[in-house]
Amino acid sequence: MAFTFKKIDHVGVCVADIDQAAENYLSALGLVAVDRELVASQKTDVCFLPVGNASVELISPQGNEGLEKFLTKRGAGLHHVAFEVEDIVKALAELKEKGVALIDETPRIGARGHKVAFIHPKAMGGVLVELVEH
Amino acid sequence: MAFTFKKIDHVGVCVADIDQAAENYLSALGLVAVDRELVASQKTDVCFLPVGNASVELISPQGNEGLEKFLTKRGAGLHHVAFEVEDIVKALAELKEKGVALIDETPRIGARGHKVAFIHPKAMGGVLVELVEH
Repeated sequence: MAFTFKKIDHVGVCVADIDQAAENYLSALGLVAVDRELVASQKTDVCFLPVGNASVELISPQGNEGLEKFLTKRGAGLHHVAFEVEDIVKALAELKEKGVALIDETPRIGARGHKVAFIHPKAMGGVLVELVEH
Repeated sequence: MAFTFKKIDHVGVCVADIDQAAENYLSALGLVAVDRELVASQKTDVCFLPVGNASVELISPQGNEGLEKFLTKRGAGLHHVAFEVEDIVKALAELKEKGVALIDETPRIGARGHKVAFIHPKAMGGVLVELVEH
């Protein structure tokens, strides 16, 4: 294994109403939302609630069909876990060579301008895993 | 808010077969399982895959009805997110005073001998939140 994960970057939580969710996490847990952003490439509204060196990411669909289906099928809840890598292109190449099913074979620009890519949940026992390069 | 979260302690992933899942996370992502344990008080089998200063926790039910229902209803996948707190008794008292719905009003002994308690998912928009005191 040539690449390693530096840390859990964030845990993604899909919600229908991002403002209400942010207010809820603030009042219940004292977590403060930062970096609110409309991510046009992914058709999502996001914000981050920092916790130590990681964050909870609140995401709500703004035309993103996958997230709309998620909300309809399961309701709001945990959606993905993101790991930080040093070099996402190298990591994806290595995963592909090992036959790990990828949603993105090349990185996209995600929230906060980071390079991101998703591994298919079927490859990780039902868990949607995101790789992030800052 | 008198208490703060020190970090994301772990992300809990519910699986039917913990050995197969651990092998899968090792071969696909290079994550190594440690602290395999039967947690009698929670009727679960768990192990931890360290990532930076946090972990992925694999959990499979060993008589735990909630987890069995989770697997039947949704299949394997993300189950909870755990935050580390300095003083779990103080944190629970504060949450209770604020009217946050708790599953555990007093801490239980969880995996690795840590004190743990769960907040009700209805209080956190569908997300099962665990507090952990090391």
